[in-house]
Amino acid sequence: MPIDPAPFAYDGLDRVIHEKARLGIVTALVSRPEGLSFNDLIRLCGLTQGNLSRHLSVLEEAGFVTISKAFESRRPRTDIRLTAEGRQRFLDYLGVLEQVVRDASARAETAEMTDPKLRPA
Amino acid sequence: MPIDPAPFAYDGLDRVIHEKARLGIVTALVSRPEGLSFNDLIRLCGLTQGNLSRHLSVLEEAGFVTISKAFESRRPRTDIRLTAEGRQRFLDYLGVLEQVVRDASARAETAEMTDPKLRPA
Repeated sequence: MPIDPAPFAYDGLDRVIHEKARLGIVTALVSRPEGLSFNDLIRLCGLTQGNLSRHLSVLEEAGFVTISKAFESRRPRTDIRLTAEGRQRFLDYLGVLEQVVRDASARAETAEMTDPKLRPA
Repeated sequence: MPIDPAPFAYDGLDRVIHEKARLGIVTALVSRPEGLSFNDLIRLCGLTQGNLSRHLSVLEEAGFVTISKAFESRRPRTDIRLTAEGRQRFLDYLGVLEQVVRDASARAETAEMTDPKLRPA
């Protein structure tokens, strides 16, 4: 196996979804194949309208979500859906993240074994 | 138990270490209580000098690391160490991240159960 020249570069952590507001948006969408409204997302993710708009543009541009506008009882309504590609990239990202957490926890434990000062009291 | 008004706000994901370059730096440092040199970190994290300097300043300002300069065989050497506080905040962050991964994976599975189109072929 070749030696990884930069084991902590974490190239697999896609910046588009690693950003924490976008991570929240995509996680909220992943269990809702029927989509969520703009107002639902504001509430679920604790974002302002402006912030949510900005993050949705980034996600749309990268192919993660589709944004559609419709009228419901004469009131405009914006629906956001995760695309099939977005869903797959999110699952891939979660796999990498899980590995990062496992690796970091193991490294923290190794340090405790070799340096008793670090052990919890 | 009160209902979380914004379950996907992920307030526990500390922005200082969630950024992926800094996540790599802190993970590299967590198993090295004796510290790492600036040059080690460049190699391990795949960062340029300028990028590493910038991220180390953010980490130092937030109290995560200490940066010390010394001479070794007449050559200058910069050493970076994780502080006790930085270590604890990193462990807290990992706990939140683990929960995020678990929650997101569970939500993705729920979607597959309710929508057969999402199931892997």
